[in-house]
Amino acid sequence: MEEAHGADGNVEGTQVEIAVMEAMHKVVPPPPRSSLDKIKVRLKETFFPDDPFRRFKGQPPKKKWILGAQYLFPILGWVPTYSLSLFKSDLVSGLTITSLAIPQGISYAQLANLPPIIGLCLMADSSFVPPLVYSILGSSRDLAVGPVSIASLIMGSMLRQAANPRTDPYLFLQLAFTSTFFAGIVQASLGIFRLGFIIDFLSKATLTGFMAGAAIIVSLQQLKSMLGIVHFTKQMGLVPVMSSVFHKTDEWSWQTILMGICFLALLLLARHVEGVAVGRTFASLKDYRVDGNKEMMAIGLMNIVGSCTSCYVTTGAFSRSAVNHQAGCKTALSNIVMSVTVMLTLLFLMPLFVYTPNVVLGAIIIAAVVGLIDVPAVYHLWKMDKIDFIVCLCAFLGVLFISVQDGLAIAVGISIFRILLQITRPNIVTLGNITGTDIYRNLHHYIDARRVPGFLILAVEAPINFTNTTYLNERITRCIEEEKAVDHHQAVLRFVILDLSAVPTIDTSGVSFLVDLKKSMEKHGFELVLVNPVGEVMEKLQRTNGVHNFFGVDSLYLTIGEAIISLSSLLKEST
Amino acid sequence: MEEAHGADGNVEGTQVEIAVMEAMHKVVPPPPRSSLDKIKVRLKETFFPDDPFRRFKGQPPKKKWILGAQYLFPILGWVPTYSLSLFKSDLVSGLTITSLAIPQGISYAQLANLPPIIGLCLMADSSFVPPLVYSILGSSRDLAVGPVSIASLIMGSMLRQAANPRTDPYLFLQLAFTSTFFAGIVQASLGIFRLGFIIDFLSKATLTGFMAGAAIIVSLQQLKSMLGIVHFTKQMGLVPVMSSVFHKTDEWSWQTILMGICFLALLLLARHVEGVAVGRTFASLKDYRVDGNKEMMAIGLMNIVGSCTSCYVTTGAFSRSAVNHQAGCKTALSNIVMSVTVMLTLLFLMPLFVYTPNVVLGAIIIAAVVGLIDVPAVYHLWKMDKIDFIVCLCAFLGVLFISVQDGLAIAVGISIFRILLQITRPNIVTLGNITGTDIYRNLHHYIDARRVPGFLILAVEAPINFTNTTYLNERITRCIEEEKAVDHHQAVLRFVILDLSAVPTIDTSGVSFLVDLKKSMEKHGFELVLVNPVGEVMEKLQRTNGVHNFFGVDSLYLTIGEAIISLSSLLKEST
Repeated sequence: MEEAHGADGNVEGTQVEIAVMEAMHKVVPPPPRSSLDKIKVRLKETFFPDDPFRRFKGQPPKKKWILGAQYLFPILGWVPTYSLSLFKSDLVSGLTITSLAIPQGISYAQLANLPPIIGLCLMADSSFVPPLVYSILGSSRDLAVGPVSIASLIMGSMLRQAANPRTDPYLFLQLAFTSTFFAGIVQASLGIFRLGFIIDFLSKATLTGFMAGAAIIVSLQQLKSMLGIVHFTKQMGLVPVMSSVFHKTDEWSWQTILMGICFLALLLLARHVEGVAVGRTFASLKDYRVDGNKEMMAIGLMNIVGSCTSCYVTTGAFSRSAVNHQAGCKTALSNIVMSVTVMLTLLFLMPLFVYTPNVVLGAIIIAAVVGLIDVPAVYHLWKMDKIDFIVCLCAFLGVLFISVQDGLAIAVGISIFRILLQITRPNIVTLGNITGTDIYRNLHHYIDARRVPGFLILAVEAPINFTNTTYLNERITRCIEEEKAVDHHQAVLRFVILDLSAVPTIDTSGVSFLVDLKKSMEKHGFELVLVNPVGEVMEKLQRTNGVHNFFGVDSLYLTIGEAIISLSSLLKEST
Repeated sequence: MEEAHGADGNVEGTQVEIAVMEAMHKVVPPPPRSSLDKIKVRLKETFFPDDPFRRFKGQPPKKKWILGAQYLFPILGWVPTYSLSLFKSDLVSGLTITSLAIPQGISYAQLANLPPIIGLCLMADSSFVPPLVYSILGSSRDLAVGPVSIASLIMGSMLRQAANPRTDPYLFLQLAFTSTFFAGIVQASLGIFRLGFIIDFLSKATLTGFMAGAAIIVSLQQLKSMLGIVHFTKQMGLVPVMSSVFHKTDEWSWQTILMGICFLALLLLARHVEGVAVGRTFASLKDYRVDGNKEMMAIGLMNIVGSCTSCYVTTGAFSRSAVNHQAGCKTALSNIVMSVTVMLTLLFLMPLFVYTPNVVLGAIIIAAVVGLIDVPAVYHLWKMDKIDFIVCLCAFLGVLFISVQDGLAIAVGISIFRILLQITRPNIVTLGNITGTDIYRNLHHYIDARRVPGFLILAVEAPINFTNTTYLNERITRCIEEEKAVDHHQAVLRFVILDLSAVPTIDTSGVSFLVDLKKSMEKHGFELVLVNPVGEVMEKLQRTNGVHNFFGVDSLYLTIGEAIISLSSLLKEST
């Protein structure tokens, strides 16, 4: 470059250019860190992103012990300062969630395929022991624990393959307790090994579709009692249930149907007052995420203890937690209130429930689960993101037509495949200069952006790794050919600038790809220039032993603007 | 903002600020495109990234037919203009690759567990028919096709589970032809359905480890003939073979061992002259990628035809292709030359090979496969990227200690898990201003970069989706707390700027996350400002019905610099 100046320049021009050169900012490698340090940071970010031990730092040993005890048993945090006014709030909210817990508990036990009376006893247990355990170990003051629909449904449909709940209820129950125990072990271990993030792979789209499908599966099962059919299929899919319903039209009883419809209409009208809306507001207000690792441990232990006292699988119930929060609960004591109230209510009302007609129970269940079909959320998905909508639809149809577990697996599979596809086929955009500024943006997005004659500016928007180097190679070749095909009446293409600002990581295949790309460009008479490689990418480019040959000072720039200023002089001289 | 000016500003100040405001660039949504258009583009990029039909565009119908025929049968492209001088080059290169094809063919047939004499006949067939088919259908002029080590090894170890090649060679052979046929069907279908990119999921790291492991497995099998052991294990793993070797020390024959070692040393010395080096140069010169979809179809058809003429599975052989290129081949005719020469040579020399002692065959095989252990490549992986090294090591150990297929599966699994982990735990970097410029870069990378008082500037470097919203929330909260903990003796933190330049895509969970983040920041007295959302992200932010409430003009900027200029005036007024 220096030589080129000497050969051509007039004095002022050269001085200006030297001044420009001096103002240029070099791309430097990030400060060196050992591999061990990097692995430590990576492990910390993977397993301790919330940095749970931050508050222990710099505390005296005695304080550390107290904080540790409070971390393990959050009850110690609020019991010493508990007051009557707090109790008043907790009492009100505890009583409020009881009113939800009883009908929900009845329906959820039914989802697990248990006969009504056994279901009721089980539900009473499950609403009593786990909330007590959670109030000692759990750190969330809002979370109301108890049986939930999804867990009940999955457990029911899985255990059904092993034992018939009608003919062999005791085996079925024992299996239910055993699986609750192991579910607890798995939950607690996920928490202890800080693997709670696995839950994140269940996207909202998956859950929306899954819940809607599950709600329909559950409602279909209630057709037995709603229509008064005696001989009903044992299967759960949409097709077998509907065929069973329409093959037994002779068993339909109009009295039962009328009673069922009336009761259901009554329940739906009553339920319409508030439930879903509360949930929404709550979610957007508090951003209630799926439990962290600590919560997973608490819930796991709760299930381990629960399974030993004849409870089936319980967890934090979203709708009840929302109501709990709205009702103004202050501490986990609201869970204790609920558990005691549920127990007393059932002891007193149990005889009544035993004689509840099946058709009424069926209507209660349908009314409870219909709320899980979230049509506005599905419409939102459709409007926002077609692929999220497809994921939702697959979960829904999978649950309806294949099975509960497969539906979930298919939806998770599609979600992950979509992410992989985004990596395999990353966006590459052509940038242009916004006239009169130093800003470079996508030509197809900003109409103010203009091509810079002699340059093709491409930005890669994904990590460069083994899954996409082949594609990137083809795509960049295509971009160059398209650029050459367009007649710009301007300078011929000379420099290809690759903006790496949006490339967070690169692997060995990616580095080889860049080196090969540079070589093949040179063969075709272009020059490849890299802009703003971030920390890790820069580090690896430097570590390639050929870094000085391949990506030296004149092919590495900090900004697109600086690259263009510096290279334009070369362009002028060569023409 | 207007009100604030009115209340405070002196006339000149306001004018300057208004001028600044007018110079600001608005973030605009990308030009509208229908969902159908977007799906079309997405499908095209996924399945036709190389745009194979580009050259058909705008051609007259007759020309289209000719181009179509040439696309299906690339031989039509070069036969009409074939000349004697081209033939000379092809003859030389064809003869050169024959010299490689014969010993490699012998060893590879051995890898498939076939008895030597059957292996030889099979190899002759497989080196004859497939190259002829490929020379008609294949589009690469350099690719030399024939049996390759990996395919032979996998096929051998899989078929061995179904049939014993020593006691029942005919069943084994029939199975080999059948599996070749189905391999051909799968390859051709992958090509036809444009799914060739699945091959990209085999990274270079995986292949390096796998090939080294496979080479050792194969060499271990040769210990039988090298040591002269009669009763040898039927298993392939490292442990059973070594235990078999050391339990039969009484069967070792020193004459055989001596002869084997001498012959092996001779071969290794002779082989050291050029092979690997040629491969390297070739790879970096031509960037020889795994076959595209068209090549997959050609290779698939080649195997379908081959299996009907008693050939076993063949494909493009890397080392021979490299030699082919170096020897100056011009067209696929070099493959025809090779196939004819191999056939003639074997017809003539077959009687000699039948009496080749096993120990010599063993030495040939070891010498051939030892070249697959690429120690410099492993060292390069270790230096460049520790995780790529681990992937390589897992493939290697998996092949050695578990099985050939499982080793491959484990390595692919780890590679994909790593990509998912990068998405689940994306980089978030804190940016600072490089003094005297409009450039903002990572504070921990560029020591010139300085914090801007009152602002926390964060850049997210990954797509925002359901797998990482929980993490991003925790990480950003942590960044803010750390920022507050550091005493800057300067303005208190007021604005959190999120640079979205490196966020290529966002899903519905991601959009909800941004909306919730903005709300929760406001509750804590901060303001969230977004900078440079790219096409898809901007589109979705706009589509959220609350976009005007959440991300209006004063919380969306095109560059960090503009955001800071515009917001600084607010900061001054409030203090």
